[in-house]
Amino acid sequence: MPELRKDPVTGRWVIIATERANRPQAFPAPVPMRDEPKTCPFCPGHEDQTPPEVLAYRKEGTLPDQKGWWVRVVPNRYPALSPVGEPARLGDGMYDLASGVGAHEVVIETPDHDANLGTMEPKQIEEILWAYRARCIELSKDSRIRYVMIFRNEGQRAGASVYHPHTQIIGLPIVPMNVKEEISGAQRYYSFKERCIFCDMIRQEMRDEKRLVEINDHFVAFAPFAPRFAYETWILPRFHRAHFEWIEQHEVSWLAKLLSSTIRRLQATVENTPYNLVIHSSPSNVDVGPHYHWHMEIMPALSTMAGFEWGSGFFINAIPPETAAEEMREQG
Amino acid sequence: MPELRKDPVTGRWVIIATERANRPQAFPAPVPMRDEPKTCPFCPGHEDQTPPEVLAYRKEGTLPDQKGWWVRVVPNRYPALSPVGEPARLGDGMYDLASGVGAHEVVIETPDHDANLGTMEPKQIEEILWAYRARCIELSKDSRIRYVMIFRNEGQRAGASVYHPHTQIIGLPIVPMNVKEEISGAQRYYSFKERCIFCDMIRQEMRDEKRLVEINDHFVAFAPFAPRFAYETWILPRFHRAHFEWIEQHEVSWLAKLLSSTIRRLQATVENTPYNLVIHSSPSNVDVGPHYHWHMEIMPALSTMAGFEWGSGFFINAIPPETAAEEMREQG
Repeated sequence: MPELRKDPVTGRWVIIATERANRPQAFPAPVPMRDEPKTCPFCPGHEDQTPPEVLAYRKEGTLPDQKGWWVRVVPNRYPALSPVGEPARLGDGMYDLASGVGAHEVVIETPDHDANLGTMEPKQIEEILWAYRARCIELSKDSRIRYVMIFRNEGQRAGASVYHPHTQIIGLPIVPMNVKEEISGAQRYYSFKERCIFCDMIRQEMRDEKRLVEINDHFVAFAPFAPRFAYETWILPRFHRAHFEWIEQHEVSWLAKLLSSTIRRLQATVENTPYNLVIHSSPSNVDVGPHYHWHMEIMPALSTMAGFEWGSGFFINAIPPETAAEEMREQG
Repeated sequence: MPELRKDPVTGRWVIIATERANRPQAFPAPVPMRDEPKTCPFCPGHEDQTPPEVLAYRKEGTLPDQKGWWVRVVPNRYPALSPVGEPARLGDGMYDLASGVGAHEVVIETPDHDANLGTMEPKQIEEILWAYRARCIELSKDSRIRYVMIFRNEGQRAGASVYHPHTQIIGLPIVPMNVKEEISGAQRYYSFKERCIFCDMIRQEMRDEKRLVEINDHFVAFAPFAPRFAYETWILPRFHRAHFEWIEQHEVSWLAKLLSSTIRRLQATVENTPYNLVIHSSPSNVDVGPHYHWHMEIMPALSTMAGFEWGSGFFINAIPPETAAEEMREQG
């Protein structure tokens, strides 16, 4: 079973996932820009090359783990966490560890090997978002899981190791440090102002306009005030919502439209940008009250994290967000 | 002038360094494995291609900014921070910013274009470490500078943008979040145990031996208990010392020997590993008392930071540190 280990100074957790060393390559080289559908484990007709599906949206009358799906969710063949076992904490002298139980799933977003979020129809993106929500709700029922992390790596510089469009979902037995820090930051603001910090941010961005990328009835996309990365863009629900999985059907369609057009704007501004997309939401089954506001962060991978960033936690960004947003707005 | 901006939720700082967009490429592609000495701005004879030197160890009788040096320190031509100006803090609605004053220097480690820490003589590494110390002391005299960060990026996947061996030094007007978190983690441990957490770690590692890489009279190298990266290795002074720049002459030679052999072991274990090396030390001119213990972190860049790591702050590592240390010990 994988092991979770905690750095005693910073409290940062690490997954020692020796199972992943069994992957065809322990340190997968950045994946080629395109591989062949005939060897792709995520392409239709190759359903037997993945573990059995846990969810699929498929044509009526088709069988599980057969062709006929348009979105398919399967366990990761090289999981970072083990689906069986009990969560346990133990010590080793001054050090702390925990058993690596949890879930690691893959959302195969489309049967189309060459699609991406910028080329898919918003209707397809809606289906994908709906699958995220369904798995998030399902995984949250497991009392061992404290946090569900949904993320997407696009392109080799962003760490994708499979070309076919997909998203990963990891159910963690521990609320991650970054999530705790965000929530406690939002809580500090709330105790001072008695307002949600993200709601205030949305108000200021809509008034200032200079960092706005696009807005619709339910969602807003803007370049954050202090972006770590050139062309970093956040998408937030305009009305306060703590949990992603509380999204409603009509909202999903507004989100799909905005996500589709934000990615299209980004890719028109910087061609073929590799990027990471991460959903920041509240821990499973925890009512964080009025403090926290779920959102998506889209982080283009145009530069490499190096010694300065690792050491300081500071980031250096050569493109002011006002410039980035203006360029993205112009790509109508 | 570059601008420092603070993320209102997490408190993370970002440098908006538009000057760096003037570099030959705003997003430098990973650098080729080797460029030609005749076009290298850091090679001897090309001293006029860098700003004037602020320190050099050179043959007696040779002139500044001429040949004859064996270590040379110059301001970065594309600095992330501006050397002139006053530190100032201001607000923009709910957001906070600060003026980007500080220092950004480059230590050209050797005249030899093709050298690296694994091939240099320990005597040369001693001279480099001595230059780090001298610049650290000098920059700390500037009351605008609160923290001096010393780091080295080796190889394209580790973010190096120049091939010739060099180290960067950045003097920051703000103590970085990562440094604050490490110091407060160490302080929490100290208030509970009344012992330095790093001294305890050294004792446990020397007793357990399974994560030890090498040890000498004054320094120890081991794989940390919760390494973010495969083959991550830390080097610590065996006797408590809060500030790197308090290192003494005889200690520098022990450190140079251990650093040289650790890098040689790493590169014999994983050929041509790209890596980041960062010195973690106490803030300038601050007596952190018995809590904090300076050290070096060597972080091989074998995998890419992706959505999961960005979102969670968790890291996934397929090589247990006990395995990594054993492999490195065998490369005697």
